[in-house]
Amino acid sequence: MNFFSERILNTRRSFIRDILEVAGKPEVISFAGGLPNPDLFPVAEIAEACQKVLATDSKGALQYAKTQGYHPLRSWIAGRYKQQYGMDVEADDILITNGSQQGIDLIGKVFLNEGDPVVVEKPGYLGALQALSMYQPEFHPVALTEEGINLDELKRTIKNASIKLIYSVPSFQNPTGITYSESVRRETAELLRENNILFVEDNPYGELRFMGSDIAPVKSFCMDNVLLLGSFSKVVVPSFRLGWVCARKEFIEKLIVAKQASDLHSSSFVQRVINQVLVDHNMDDHIDAIREVYKKQRDAMVNAIKAHFNGDIKCTKPEGGMFLWADLPDGMSSMKLFDAAVKKDVAFVPGFPFYCDDGGESTMRLNYSNADEAAIDTGIKRLADAFYELKDN
Amino acid sequence: MNFFSERILNTRRSFIRDILEVAGKPEVISFAGGLPNPDLFPVAEIAEACQKVLATDSKGALQYAKTQGYHPLRSWIAGRYKQQYGMDVEADDILITNGSQQGIDLIGKVFLNEGDPVVVEKPGYLGALQALSMYQPEFHPVALTEEGINLDELKRTIKNASIKLIYSVPSFQNPTGITYSESVRRETAELLRENNILFVEDNPYGELRFMGSDIAPVKSFCMDNVLLLGSFSKVVVPSFRLGWVCARKEFIEKLIVAKQASDLHSSSFVQRVINQVLVDHNMDDHIDAIREVYKKQRDAMVNAIKAHFNGDIKCTKPEGGMFLWADLPDGMSSMKLFDAAVKKDVAFVPGFPFYCDDGGESTMRLNYSNADEAAIDTGIKRLADAFYELKDN
Repeated sequence: MNFFSERILNTRRSFIRDILEVAGKPEVISFAGGLPNPDLFPVAEIAEACQKVLATDSKGALQYAKTQGYHPLRSWIAGRYKQQYGMDVEADDILITNGSQQGIDLIGKVFLNEGDPVVVEKPGYLGALQALSMYQPEFHPVALTEEGINLDELKRTIKNASIKLIYSVPSFQNPTGITYSESVRRETAELLRENNILFVEDNPYGELRFMGSDIAPVKSFCMDNVLLLGSFSKVVVPSFRLGWVCARKEFIEKLIVAKQASDLHSSSFVQRVINQVLVDHNMDDHIDAIREVYKKQRDAMVNAIKAHFNGDIKCTKPEGGMFLWADLPDGMSSMKLFDAAVKKDVAFVPGFPFYCDDGGESTMRLNYSNADEAAIDTGIKRLADAFYELKDN
Repeated sequence: MNFFSERILNTRRSFIRDILEVAGKPEVISFAGGLPNPDLFPVAEIAEACQKVLATDSKGALQYAKTQGYHPLRSWIAGRYKQQYGMDVEADDILITNGSQQGIDLIGKVFLNEGDPVVVEKPGYLGALQALSMYQPEFHPVALTEEGINLDELKRTIKNASIKLIYSVPSFQNPTGITYSESVRRETAELLRENNILFVEDNPYGELRFMGSDIAPVKSFCMDNVLLLGSFSKVVVPSFRLGWVCARKEFIEKLIVAKQASDLHSSSFVQRVINQVLVDHNMDDHIDAIREVYKKQRDAMVNAIKAHFNGDIKCTKPEGGMFLWADLPDGMSSMKLFDAAVKKDVAFVPGFPFYCDDGGESTMRLNYSNADEAAIDTGIKRLADAFYELKDN
């Protein structure tokens, strides 16, 4: 007898997490994961905050808590949106989640019926494809340009498929690193309003801009229809699993019901610890330090590709975030390159898992946040060695 | 336009959490929540463990981690099952979840298709009804006796409805406090095997036995079909949101896929902190201390009911856990009693939300873990005052 649900039988185990097993060996230089640089974790600040929280209100910090999340933390998040973009947001428009990954899952739970037409980016964030596919929607992938989602294709898709929801990473996208321009954001917002479509704006990397000027979130151009997801994983630490959804109260109310059913609430202890870190330290100084390091690491990777590949692969040059995206010569399989690269102790993620239909065989994602400049050069050199062996065979 | 999914439109916001808002006022003596006694939280041990974890391996403790959970913690859990009940369980049979609440959600995700027939207890744990209802099964409530689930009714239900899954809290059940006897457990296990039915054994309170002798989990009588849920919320602290599913590897594998899609992994920082507490301290001593206090509080409540109610209400006398269950005289509404009680600054949970069909109007749940003996006597006195005013009108 088969005990399993249809939804789980239709979902693959994450290929990326399997790759990470390989990439985790100590001798391997890994450009595979999406790991922040652990040298930048605010360890002393967190240690101090743990003690402070327990010394101040241990019973409150260790007892069951409200589903929506710790109020001072929600206020801090709302205040930052107000300060950065003048957005009219308050603590009650925020729900704390277990990373922004849980935000995607809860949105699926609250908004998707089986067969609902959903636009995703092509290529798009694999974790979102997984989370949403649990609710069995119909995916309509739309291609990306250097300026963001392809608006002509998006318009055609909206016309043909009466799209209910769009999932997108407009800033330093995973996997490509590209960023939606302000005009693409404004036009997208207009489309949302005209066609009454929900937009999930997943923004884990937005704060990691190291070049160019900041662009306001799509949400700021269409407050009603956008559910904006944020995360402390990339700017403080990932292991706390703290993210949030920012959306209109009517949506937050239903998301709270779904969160309650899913796990009652996120760890209130780590919510208080992170809040204490934010109260006691200047977040912007910390983020500036991350930006500076990531800029150097991105430059190291772009330069190493230039030096070792003689123009034989093309890559994006992101202005922030953690990834760049490379195109191999036509017909070359990035999966074959992966096998060859692992033998030389370097790892990356082949592009095809980011495509929910076909395609992407000659593409790959390279992460630069989790290796230092010297390791980046060595790793890209190894990758080039594997590349030319494969090419010459 | 309605944006919401059918599943969320069919789910009520938890009535209990709304009650907790009322019960949270400082002047109210609350028997409403399911809160552990915060005086027993191991605050110093947790503070010490936080420092130790950060001093030992800060990068490991703060980085992304594996979906299944921290291996030493999973080994500890498996070892305890082996030691307590001789169960053949290892670390890989365990998945760490955000409290056992998330275990229920993930089981729904992995095993339930819309319309699947599911047995729940009547009355049953509200949070499970909520979590499972997201997957739109068909609920078949089966009544409880003092010895556990009503086996005749269960057999009839299995015959008539080809049940796929049973959800149950066999030890110190929420809301009634009753415990399945060993013979009911064995007979249930036999039914599972004969009919190839899954059994979710939710066991957050099992360690809190303060009278009588321990009874092995249903899982120990039918390893294959039972998914056993456990939790650190009642024996260490709730705010860490750490629980687990123990099941055969084939099930764990699919639950990992669902967990990955839901939130990547549970906070690895708090997993390491709790593991450090378990390594450095004797868990059994700590649990003994909790048992001793809860026994006194239960006795205080049973005695106060005897003293103030003159036999006009009946209640269960649980051998462990955190709740007792009371029957009001026929026809008296516990919802009306709740309104009257709140005016006298005492709160409890009326019984009807624990029934997924009708019934339970004259029942109520009383929690004794979160008030000291003096407050319990005062609170029950206030409740009796409200009761007799209502009865005499």
